[in-house]
Amino acid sequence: MKKFLDDNFLIDNEIGELLYENYAKDMPIIDYHCHVNPAEIADNKKYKNITEVWLGGDHYKWRAMRSCGIPERVITGNSTDEEKFKAFCSAMPYLIGNPMYHWSHLELKRYFDYDGIICPENSDEIWKLTQEKLAEDSMSVRGIISRSNVALLCTTDDPADDLANHIKIAEDKSFTTKVLPAFRPDNAMKIQKPGFKAYIEKLSAVVGVEIKDFKTLGDVLASRIQYFNVLGCKTADHGMDDYYLYDGSVPSGQALSIADAAFKKAMRGEDVPNDLALVYRSAMIKVLASEYTKYGWVMQLHMGVLRNTNSIMFANHGADFGYDTIGSFSIKSLAELLDALDREGILPKTVLYSINPNDNAALATLIGCFQHTSEESEGLNNMMKIQHGSAWWFNDNKNGMTAQLENLGNLSALGKFIGMLTDSRSFLSYTRHEYFRRVLCNVLGGYVERGEYPCDIETLAQMVCDICYNNTKDYFGFNNI
Amino acid sequence: MKKFLDDNFLIDNEIGELLYENYAKDMPIIDYHCHVNPAEIADNKKYKNITEVWLGGDHYKWRAMRSCGIPERVITGNSTDEEKFKAFCSAMPYLIGNPMYHWSHLELKRYFDYDGIICPENSDEIWKLTQEKLAEDSMSVRGIISRSNVALLCTTDDPADDLANHIKIAEDKSFTTKVLPAFRPDNAMKIQKPGFKAYIEKLSAVVGVEIKDFKTLGDVLASRIQYFNVLGCKTADHGMDDYYLYDGSVPSGQALSIADAAFKKAMRGEDVPNDLALVYRSAMIKVLASEYTKYGWVMQLHMGVLRNTNSIMFANHGADFGYDTIGSFSIKSLAELLDALDREGILPKTVLYSINPNDNAALATLIGCFQHTSEESEGLNNMMKIQHGSAWWFNDNKNGMTAQLENLGNLSALGKFIGMLTDSRSFLSYTRHEYFRRVLCNVLGGYVERGEYPCDIETLAQMVCDICYNNTKDYFGFNNI
Amino acid sequence: MKKFLDDNFLIDNEIGELLYENYAKDMPIIDYHCHVNPAEIADNKKYKNITEVWLGGDHYKWRAMRSCGIPERVITGNSTDEEKFKAFCSAMPYLIGNPMYHWSHLELKRYFDYDGIICPENSDEIWKLTQEKLAEDSMSVRGIISRSNVALLCTTDDPADDLANHIKIAEDKSFTTKVLPAFRPDNAMKIQKPGFKAYIEKLSAVVGVEIKDFKTLGDVLASRIQYFNVLGCKTADHGMDDYYLYDGSVPSGQALSIADAAFKKAMRGEDVPNDLALVYRSAMIKVLASEYTKYGWVMQLHMGVLRNTNSIMFANHGADFGYDTIGSFSIKSLAELLDALDREGILPKTVLYSINPNDNAALATLIGCFQHTSEESEGLNNMMKIQHGSAWWFNDNKNGMTAQLENLGNLSALGKFIGMLTDSRSFLSYTRHEYFRRVLCNVLGGYVERGEYPCDIETLAQMVCDICYNNTKDYFGFNNI
Repeated sequence: MKKFLDDNFLIDNEIGELLYENYAKDMPIIDYHCHVNPAEIADNKKYKNITEVWLGGDHYKWRAMRSCGIPERVITGNSTDEEKFKAFCSAMPYLIGNPMYHWSHLELKRYFDYDGIICPENSDEIWKLTQEKLAEDSMSVRGIISRSNVALLCTTDDPADDLANHIKIAEDKSFTTKVLPAFRPDNAMKIQKPGFKAYIEKLSAVVGVEIKDFKTLGDVLASRIQYFNVLGCKTADHGMDDYYLYDGSVPSGQALSIADAAFKKAMRGEDVPNDLALVYRSAMIKVLASEYTKYGWVMQLHMGVLRNTNSIMFANHGADFGYDTIGSFSIKSLAELLDALDREGILPKTVLYSINPNDNAALATLIGCFQHTSEESEGLNNMMKIQHGSAWWFNDNKNGMTAQLENLGNLSALGKFIGMLTDSRSFLSYTRHEYFRRVLCNVLGGYVERGEYPCDIETLAQMVCDICYNNTKDYFGFNNI
Repeated sequence: MKKFLDDNFLIDNEIGELLYENYAKDMPIIDYHCHVNPAEIADNKKYKNITEVWLGGDHYKWRAMRSCGIPERVITGNSTDEEKFKAFCSAMPYLIGNPMYHWSHLELKRYFDYDGIICPENSDEIWKLTQEKLAEDSMSVRGIISRSNVALLCTTDDPADDLANHIKIAEDKSFTTKVLPAFRPDNAMKIQKPGFKAYIEKLSAVVGVEIKDFKTLGDVLASRIQYFNVLGCKTADHGMDDYYLYDGSVPSGQALSIADAAFKKAMRGEDVPNDLALVYRSAMIKVLASEYTKYGWVMQLHMGVLRNTNSIMFANHGADFGYDTIGSFSIKSLAELLDALDREGILPKTVLYSINPNDNAALATLIGCFQHTSEESEGLNNMMKIQHGSAWWFNDNKNGMTAQLENLGNLSALGKFIGMLTDSRSFLSYTRHEYFRRVLCNVLGGYVERGEYPCDIETLAQMVCDICYNNTKDYFGFNNI
Repeated sequence: MKKFLDDNFLIDNEIGELLYENYAKDMPIIDYHCHVNPAEIADNKKYKNITEVWLGGDHYKWRAMRSCGIPERVITGNSTDEEKFKAFCSAMPYLIGNPMYHWSHLELKRYFDYDGIICPENSDEIWKLTQEKLAEDSMSVRGIISRSNVALLCTTDDPADDLANHIKIAEDKSFTTKVLPAFRPDNAMKIQKPGFKAYIEKLSAVVGVEIKDFKTLGDVLASRIQYFNVLGCKTADHGMDDYYLYDGSVPSGQALSIADAAFKKAMRGEDVPNDLALVYRSAMIKVLASEYTKYGWVMQLHMGVLRNTNSIMFANHGADFGYDTIGSFSIKSLAELLDALDREGILPKTVLYSINPNDNAALATLIGCFQHTSEESEGLNNMMKIQHGSAWWFNDNKNGMTAQLENLGNLSALGKFIGMLTDSRSFLSYTRHEYFRRVLCNVLGGYVERGEYPCDIETLAQMVCDICYNNTKDYFGFNNI
């Protein structure tokens, strides 16, 4: 029996242990997709207690507490921070098998040197210990980032954002981690959402241009991409929540007219029907992909989420409150989108993520169909152009990661994978890179232990370093780190 | 190599063995969903031979025999019981990996003290032995239930049922197992089925009220719910075989008119088109859920079955003859149903089952979105309100159970799970609780053995007892057992 | 740690090792579905180098190379054969976990007695060695087939094919492996494809009958089936790429008129809309299934592929160039197809394959619904009439095979399974039978090692020999081998 959370946590074979200990463990982190607040880095925020860090915005923890029948009052309501933390501790023992159980213990161990179990009996001790430690400078936001060995991180930013915090961070040469924006234009895509008109008006104000049609919107977004690019941005993210991602049945020119009509309809405050909205989104993603291609950016597509399923909670609290779930999308439609971009020469480097683990096999085979833009292509400098992204959100656990990695091994070229990102709102989540690296080394070591790959440590070590760091650096083009 | 079916059957780790042997093994059984015939309990039926028990109504065994190319004549036809049993024995060796192989051997071992293998060579011996034992009083229906340590069981009953057998069983104080009805109103939902009109007329006759419109039907069903409740019923089951479970696009008032029109159409013997039928079902489930909520009942939804696929066999033998298969349903539609009920304050405690193992992840995340009815909710006394039900039907095997449990561990709070039910037509099936408990202890012990959960036996033992018994008892509100 | 590719490769338990070594290993091969070119057997082709064998037509290898960012020029372009082979070697180390990594090494070991690793350092050595060996007679196409212990193989042939090569092979009594055609009428089904009209005209020319309507086409295909049957054909294959496989909503007589109208529309060069095309395909599969049933043939249905997703590459290179991917199809529609055939007494022995691993459970349950054609049926001489085919294409690897086998174990009668086929374009692929047999023995042995099946070596050995050879021979009716 292994001790809980011991040095070989998540690793069940010797080669895996060796690969983790000697190679994976100390590689710097590139966190190319997360949701931390750049203002907190700019201001080097400090936390008043563990509740603020853990329960301030983490919907994983809220969901777990709700699932244990804990009242909302002591989850996100008006109870005291200490009551909330104790309620969290009371839920923990029931969360056997949950990655959040592991993340929380890893965070206590790595950042607070605490080796105990999170449970009601220890809740006082942990509350006090963490309060003391959080007061130390090494536990400020920048302190946490630095001690986590983060070489570079990308936040997630709206096109309308002025990126003032990024400028401020970049100007402060005392902080060595590179903090880059990432371009997330979802608000410009959601033509059927109530806030669309207001958003476009806000964007108009930011750029000082009246956005009166589809063409102008495209131009404005292109100018924002240019602005983001100047500030070092290398990637764009898209939340593709709709079932259909693309409609190619309408001829190009006509599609632009329909998209324009849909846009104007939305700006008049009218409902945009599904078919028009799909043509709009299809036209807009082409405009954007074309710009991403121009700058060599990576396009990340996140698919399959069914959002805000609980309308009472959405009405009261808005999005990202722990009420999203696993839905589905059309793989055929995704294939048509990639093909349309490829055909027009505007398919950028692309990372595909689905929240539905059923899509693993389909995605890992689909990427294999678009690795070359044309037969004249020289390939992407030995890189894999289209990637199946790391196990995402509800799949971000040992089973999910192992499935994604083994699936990529079976169906693609695992050695060319760009590896892990946190997708997190919390600065303590860098332990998820540790978690991933352990699973990765376990998978790679497992192949060797079972005689399915030669025991060539040099090759394996290189592969570990590549997947943990080098592939990501080269793929995104993160230089000077 | 482990001996076949030894003391640690299905368990591969020491903690799991300890948990099973010391805690799970002797917990009483609550079988909260099954299909045994209450008349056989009331009459304390005895079986004339093993063919009657095993091959009288078990479509798992019929399917297995058909898959081995055995003629229907010696499966469900007019061969002698002994011929049928021998044909069954001839198929058994081919069923490697099949849970039915394990169930059958476990049943022989636990109820007939037989340790041999079921195969052609042993068929005479088994035939004779079981015939002798089945003549003993301890092998009457009540004898089997009592020696199986069943504290409580719920049958599955139609609203039109008078529950006379339940009254008879309850009045006989010599039998200590509690036998409760469960409310299964599928016949009132299937407005497109040929037998609908006849069913409604039968229901009318039972209650002495002419059911002439949707409103009256709702009232009659409510009165039957009240009647079931008086007799101790705590749960309703729904077979949700349609792809779309709910349509919320029609405003409430209008939906009732459409449902009423659909009902009257069906009662006139006319075909009801799919869209009307969906509105009818959507309106009816609201009527029912409202009543379930009032009485604190648990609503069980069984989804995704494609029924009666073989039309020749259906024409000749009707339903439940071994010709159902794995289909699919819309998760989005299910989310909308739960949300609609929640919004109207009529979402009862709910258990979701899908026959398609692909839905595991989606269901385990969806339940997390409806654990609280509102932000003012105090939660459900530390219980999990919406549950992902135990691996069902074709998934009721080691792989399927392990997947469901690990998935619940990853995505929800496994310690709050309400555990196993047999869903069986046979009184010998209580060994499936043993089967489940072994898999459960193996999963829980596995987490500990791999260092993914602390080796805290007290906490683990409590969790085992909770999932095997306590959670179920508290969740359904089964008192006085 | 096991040595790479050792004697117990892919087997992790002793019973599995014993079963493989003593029983599976030396059973002859029946390769009942593959895509090798019968002309190369007739002509006993020899290869000039390893690039011709490995990279001449193998889209698995092309895809892997593209995924490693290698330029198309050195994959399928105008580089030299040696450059291409070296490029392939440069990709290999990244393919950890990929079955192609194993297949390639197994092929080098079994056919070239080479024990080294395929990597850039060894590429010269391998290039020279294979060039020498390929010059030997034992490495001619017939040499490879004979030394691979292939008792019988089925190629894949168009109805318009004159089967001249098959006649030539059959007439040469010096070659003892039986080579049979298989009937693949996809071209006659694809009424919406640009080449349909030309294909029908070609078929007309071959048979000397003007095919002017649906009825005549059916008659012509029936005559081709008769011709194939005379030459020993025992099976037909269908690539079912559409989402809907069958439409039974149109009454039979009317369906024939619609199918006829659709056919004539296509022959006039007009577009055939989806609904008409579905009725056409539904009517045509009935015509064909009826003939298959008459001759006792096996109908193989391959479902779920999304073909030619990359339109640039398709325009330049046509089909089968490595741009197909995993799509989906309607299980409900498949169930309706099987039921329609069964109802009309024209459901032949059928093997179902899906490229989407998500369909495993649904297919293994669906087959259980059609094992008997009617209740009077005497069954299929103890065979399983409807089969879930071996893990196909992207699933043709350890994980995919293990999932298919365990799923069949759980849900069907694994002992009645007809086992492996290569589906390959290469004569070196017979090692995939070794690969499958190893996985099979590992799965069967695993059940025994875990105490889930008795350690009865005689029964297990029989099961291994049945699944590797006997079941296939009996099921297809391959006599005199």
